[in-house]
Amino acid sequence: MEISTVIAHIALILIAARICSELAGRLKLPPVLGELAAGIILGPSLFGLIAINEIIALLAEVGIILLLFQIGIKTNVGKLLHSGGKSITVAAGGVILPFAACFLSSHYLFELDFLAAMMVAGTMTATSIGITMRTLTDLGRNTGTEGQIVLGAAVIDDILGVLLLAILFDFASGGQTDYTAVSKILLMTFVFFLLTPLIAKTFAHLINVFEPLSTLPGIVPTSIVSLLLLTAWSSHEVGLPMLLGGFVVGLALSKQFHIPGGQSIETDGHFSEHVQHQMNPIIQLFTPIFFVSIGLSVDLAQVDWSSAFFWGFSLLLTVLAIASKVAGAMFIRESLARRVAIGLSMVPRGEVGLVFAGLGKSTGLFNDEIYVTMIVVIVYTTLFTPFLLRAFYRRFGTNLSPDT
Amino acid sequence: MEISTVIAHIALILIAARICSELAGRLKLPPVLGELAAGIILGPSLFGLIAINEIIALLAEVGIILLLFQIGIKTNVGKLLHSGGKSITVAAGGVILPFAACFLSSHYLFELDFLAAMMVAGTMTATSIGITMRTLTDLGRNTGTEGQIVLGAAVIDDILGVLLLAILFDFASGGQTDYTAVSKILLMTFVFFLLTPLIAKTFAHLINVFEPLSTLPGIVPTSIVSLLLLTAWSSHEVGLPMLLGGFVVGLALSKQFHIPGGQSIETDGHFSEHVQHQMNPIIQLFTPIFFVSIGLSVDLAQVDWSSAFFWGFSLLLTVLAIASKVAGAMFIRESLARRVAIGLSMVPRGEVGLVFAGLGKSTGLFNDEIYVTMIVVIVYTTLFTPFLLRAFYRRFGTNLSPDT
Repeated sequence: MEISTVIAHIALILIAARICSELAGRLKLPPVLGELAAGIILGPSLFGLIAINEIIALLAEVGIILLLFQIGIKTNVGKLLHSGGKSITVAAGGVILPFAACFLSSHYLFELDFLAAMMVAGTMTATSIGITMRTLTDLGRNTGTEGQIVLGAAVIDDILGVLLLAILFDFASGGQTDYTAVSKILLMTFVFFLLTPLIAKTFAHLINVFEPLSTLPGIVPTSIVSLLLLTAWSSHEVGLPMLLGGFVVGLALSKQFHIPGGQSIETDGHFSEHVQHQMNPIIQLFTPIFFVSIGLSVDLAQVDWSSAFFWGFSLLLTVLAIASKVAGAMFIRESLARRVAIGLSMVPRGEVGLVFAGLGKSTGLFNDEIYVTMIVVIVYTTLFTPFLLRAFYRRFGTNLSPDT
Repeated sequence: MEISTVIAHIALILIAARICSELAGRLKLPPVLGELAAGIILGPSLFGLIAINEIIALLAEVGIILLLFQIGIKTNVGKLLHSGGKSITVAAGGVILPFAACFLSSHYLFELDFLAAMMVAGTMTATSIGITMRTLTDLGRNTGTEGQIVLGAAVIDDILGVLLLAILFDFASGGQTDYTAVSKILLMTFVFFLLTPLIAKTFAHLINVFEPLSTLPGIVPTSIVSLLLLTAWSSHEVGLPMLLGGFVVGLALSKQFHIPGGQSIETDGHFSEHVQHQMNPIIQLFTPIFFVSIGLSVDLAQVDWSSAFFWGFSLLLTVLAIASKVAGAMFIRESLARRVAIGLSMVPRGEVGLVFAGLGKSTGLFNDEIYVTMIVVIVYTTLFTPFLLRAFYRRFGTNLSPDT
């Protein structure tokens, strides 16, 4: 494709995202829905103006890496660790229950064969950190108690999702599960989360020292983006989603993050704000492309809206996807209202779910009908959550401490 | 190619550009040379780590569009128009003399056939606005009298280059020159330069009015980038280089730009600064990719350094490329020192030259040896100019009024 055409497409994506999210805001809907809708409108589902290609996929990936960086750098690490136990419980419940519920109903009720049902269940597990945190931010609930627990749980959830993917991939490839490969990912994940903050912190320290000495402008945006991209790449090499790299760098550069005994590479609190200030326009430019690209990657025109299987299967899975995530949040010590709010926040499926569905299709486990159903259910979880959460907060929000 | 690989490549480009330009700065060399060198080091000439592809080409194009936007928005339109007559003279001299000199020597001295010699001459005409303005900025000479005249001349020069390209393309395609096509480009150029500032100004006015009403952050970066990309695309549709679109939008949003009778779409002076402040990190992120990509697009390993033709032809063309641009600046009423400084500033060839050379190769007018020679001469003009200009300013700069 000609470069000028791609340039026009990117402009269209940005303009449609802005118009639709502003409109959503006026209609008191969550703005992120506007961006998803922009993708559905521009993409194959409706007007077919823009097909997703390598370049848009890359810009979207950079967008989600930057968004996770922003989420990380705004995180209060102390609070996040404080709610760590609860996050682990929510994550575990929110993986096991959806997996079990979706596997059992696909295999026994809809008579999918064992592996296909496992893959359907896998698709329904991992929460989308991006959409979840964006939805909470739109509602002004991202920095409070629920926000902290959900953020931790969504990150752990993503890691569990990737491990599950590794196990199912071996299954699907016909072989036995290679437990050394799975333990290798576990070990690498551990090393990655241990080393990356150290490297990022050292890098930030160097930038902080070097910036006043440099005669050329732009050291912060270029070097922070380089750091983010390199970490995202290593995250991928380790076998994790790239966006986790962005999140870890964000955490490492957040105000309250201190490495024990790491005084020599400490930066002052101003540096974190300085970085956020310079990075904000770049983050704001790229993140809409991610949300629009989710809409672009769906082709609702392929859905056979008269198929009984499609309606039954997609509605059942959607109900299970919501109910099982809410049930998964019931095992922590919090008020019922808070547990429901946390469970609802965990409902949106996104990036990792799309990877599962893609794998199901490419290995032949999913026929076209099952694949489209998976995509539609992912879109449903993403579309319904903001409404459910907003309605819930409006009705029961007074029982929850407001955000700080 | 996998997205994660491309992400690693972009990180490498940004890091190498920063390290090499900082090093160049320490060594009292122009930083832009560092960025070109980074491309030569990473590219096929030396380590072959990164091959230029569609994605890098796109990011580089966005980089040069953004750079021209920055040049435009910082321009004092009054001064630019004031020096307009001189700019036209310099542009005309700087197209006619190099064309004539390079055509005559290629055709009669090196015995290239008529069309190939015309194409060589075409390659040697258009000044690279990006490299020229970057070099003057590195020397702190971009906003003074020479800077204004050179900027105007370089823009006109690019338009003349494109018209020449249209004429030669018809020639090269074997047919007669289609003068209706050429006049169509001329007419479209006129309409483009007339309408775009109006549209951009209206758009800016809307953003300015709408920004306080929006509840979502990021309206300035997303809408200004959209405007830039759309204008770049229309510039391309008209037949002009995309970067001119960026320049015109920059001019329209600059502080001193007023449309006669356009009070209703006027924005206050603060808006221009507000836009610059938000756009700076984005510009600083993308522009190094452009300069590195020029280095990446050259393969010095293909040069047969033992060929007498190569040495003779490339050295003669380089001398002619420099001397004819300096001679082309002699027809204006300025001190000799200033005329030489202006002429030297016009020496770097870049984007349009590379398009000419690519066309020469794809139409079969250039064999590999001539093509490589063209590329090497373009690189030479780019590499030598900062040294020549710096040395000239150091020796004769006191005769020139300093920049404001």
